[in-house]
Amino acid sequence: MQRTVKSILVLGAGSFGSCLADHLGDSDHHVYLWSRSKEFCDHFNQHYRSIHQLKDHQFSTHITAVGPQFPSQSLIDKIDILLFAIPTEGVRSNLAALKPLLNFERLPLLIFVNKGIEASTQCMTLEIIADELGPGVAKAATFLSGPSFAKEIVRRQPTSVAIASLTLERAQKAAEVFHQPWFRCYTSDDPIGVELAGAMKNVYAIVAGAAEGLGFENNTRASLITRALSEMTRVGKAYGANPLTYLGLAGVGDLILTCSSPLSRNYTVGKRLAAGEKIDDILKTLGSVAEGVATSKALKSVIEDLELDLPIANSVRRADDFSVAFVYTGKDVKERAQWLMSLPSVPELDLPENELSEPVRRLRAKLGM
Amino acid sequence: MQRTVKSILVLGAGSFGSCLADHLGDSDHHVYLWSRSKEFCDHFNQHYRSIHQLKDHQFSTHITAVGPQFPSQSLIDKIDILLFAIPTEGVRSNLAALKPLLNFERLPLLIFVNKGIEASTQCMTLEIIADELGPGVAKAATFLSGPSFAKEIVRRQPTSVAIASLTLERAQKAAEVFHQPWFRCYTSDDPIGVELAGAMKNVYAIVAGAAEGLGFENNTRASLITRALSEMTRVGKAYGANPLTYLGLAGVGDLILTCSSPLSRNYTVGKRLAAGEKIDDILKTLGSVAEGVATSKALKSVIEDLELDLPIANSVRRADDFSVAFVYTGKDVKERAQWLMSLPSVPELDLPENELSEPVRRLRAKLGM
Repeated sequence: MQRTVKSILVLGAGSFGSCLADHLGDSDHHVYLWSRSKEFCDHFNQHYRSIHQLKDHQFSTHITAVGPQFPSQSLIDKIDILLFAIPTEGVRSNLAALKPLLNFERLPLLIFVNKGIEASTQCMTLEIIADELGPGVAKAATFLSGPSFAKEIVRRQPTSVAIASLTLERAQKAAEVFHQPWFRCYTSDDPIGVELAGAMKNVYAIVAGAAEGLGFENNTRASLITRALSEMTRVGKAYGANPLTYLGLAGVGDLILTCSSPLSRNYTVGKRLAAGEKIDDILKTLGSVAEGVATSKALKSVIEDLELDLPIANSVRRADDFSVAFVYTGKDVKERAQWLMSLPSVPELDLPENELSEPVRRLRAKLGM
Repeated sequence: MQRTVKSILVLGAGSFGSCLADHLGDSDHHVYLWSRSKEFCDHFNQHYRSIHQLKDHQFSTHITAVGPQFPSQSLIDKIDILLFAIPTEGVRSNLAALKPLLNFERLPLLIFVNKGIEASTQCMTLEIIADELGPGVAKAATFLSGPSFAKEIVRRQPTSVAIASLTLERAQKAAEVFHQPWFRCYTSDDPIGVELAGAMKNVYAIVAGAAEGLGFENNTRASLITRALSEMTRVGKAYGANPLTYLGLAGVGDLILTCSSPLSRNYTVGKRLAAGEKIDDILKTLGSVAEGVATSKALKSVIEDLELDLPIANSVRRADDFSVAFVYTGKDVKERAQWLMSLPSVPELDLPENELSEPVRRLRAKLGM
């Protein structure tokens, strides 16, 4: 494959942003890594090491840290690729900051790697982009998702991801930028399915962690993951996504990873909840963002709007409480597990008809579809 | 649910047959467990303990071991349910032995739990049944599959399985017999998809074990499982199975389990091959049947007949060797892994059109479809 060196700006220097910056720098691209922390930038540019995440890793010298101010007009002007590695809750404000700096006539390739649903609006990222930058930009945006722990990517452990876009040619371009023998990219034309899968799997990871914390073993974990996948597929189908997307890397691939390992933050949250810790205490001491906690709240509203019955997802939040209370605290977890197991025998995958319910109509209208 | 006590004959006292016999005895059914070993029968009927598998388990006293002769006409006559827990390579001969004893006017509920493709004929079990007992019996047969380690079932670890049949009402009957809060049954009308998934996952478990043996970690395992699932789905689609079956317990559920744990025999085979052991030595000392080894041979023929390109499945057997030689021996494993990673970027799931190739036409003709 003929490769061209690109100028790439990675917005967000958390563990996933940093590891992708490293991967791209390692492939000889010119990478700028934006952090809000002056201390991070100064330290990184001197030592090529992070002060927060992946501390033991020696980063590529093709990376320049920029910040703490939002990247300048002159930097944005020379950028070919903008990679958003910002938690979902911060995407809207950063897109608003970016908007006046963006040349809409010569749009860089936009790649989003966050996974979540905005809590206050129940918007997925595609919808946030349409709100802030218009439907044309949303349709051109690409979404990278798949089983990819940052700690393993920086050690070149073979990793595969899906890159999805409503404009398949853009997904192919993004795939070419990332593709290496140790980082394989598969393309998809179903960003809605990919995005919903990425957001929902974080919620199920909390359940999987709680199940492990309660002493359930391999059979239970495998069936929990499978039944979670069935719930995810039903939500995707209701949104007009392709059910087969859930067979892919961004679907079951990422779900397996997130539901199987203590390296997953959301899984750790569930495990500690099952041990009787309070959610507030866990979040204070976790050291990084567990997107599943915010997403579980948004997901609850989405499920209600779609009028779907998803017993596992609904276990994560109390039916009567949208605030900080979590069903997974002490005794409740066991009761809920027993309740889940007492449900009657049903067909495995009962996909809803596409009725175009309210959230789906809204998304489609914003995208001009 | 109104429950009726049934008389059930389990053919085969290996670990899976024994654990299902125990589960059914535990639910108060009258269970007969057939073994070819007089020593097993005598010991079991005195102590309710096995001499081979699950030695530490105290079995239900509702089980009577029968054997070593094939079960008698008088026993078969009073049986409501026949459960076949015999490796695929033994199914044809046992069906032939059963045929003269079977009352075709009052057919018991037939449940098959073996997972494999017959090596010499490339037949799946549905086809073996049609050959030996006719299409009517094959259509009425049910197939139980899903993530279910025997060691966890006997300890009542929550387990979920799919039960599939071309006659959905029969699948529902079988589900009712097995269903308990700690053993959940989901029904499916796609026995072809369920059977192929159950057979193929054993082959991929060998690859997953080899990958672990080579030092690959979470990202690689999750993407290997996902790409294996994509290959399984393509074979299923070529056979006219429903691709969504692969999202279910018998598909991805069982694949996750088998590809994740040293409790899986096929996984252990792969891990030991990666460590440089010879396949013959491994099989001699494994202590039980690894169905993936026989299935990998049959699968190779099936894939060629279907004219599909499945790089992972094809890695298990040398292209030029159908005998005992295995690609997974020492250095070859690493070379093959590197080759797999060097493949170009492609769309994730490229399902074949249903062209009704030779093995599919043959199966359909035998079933009168």
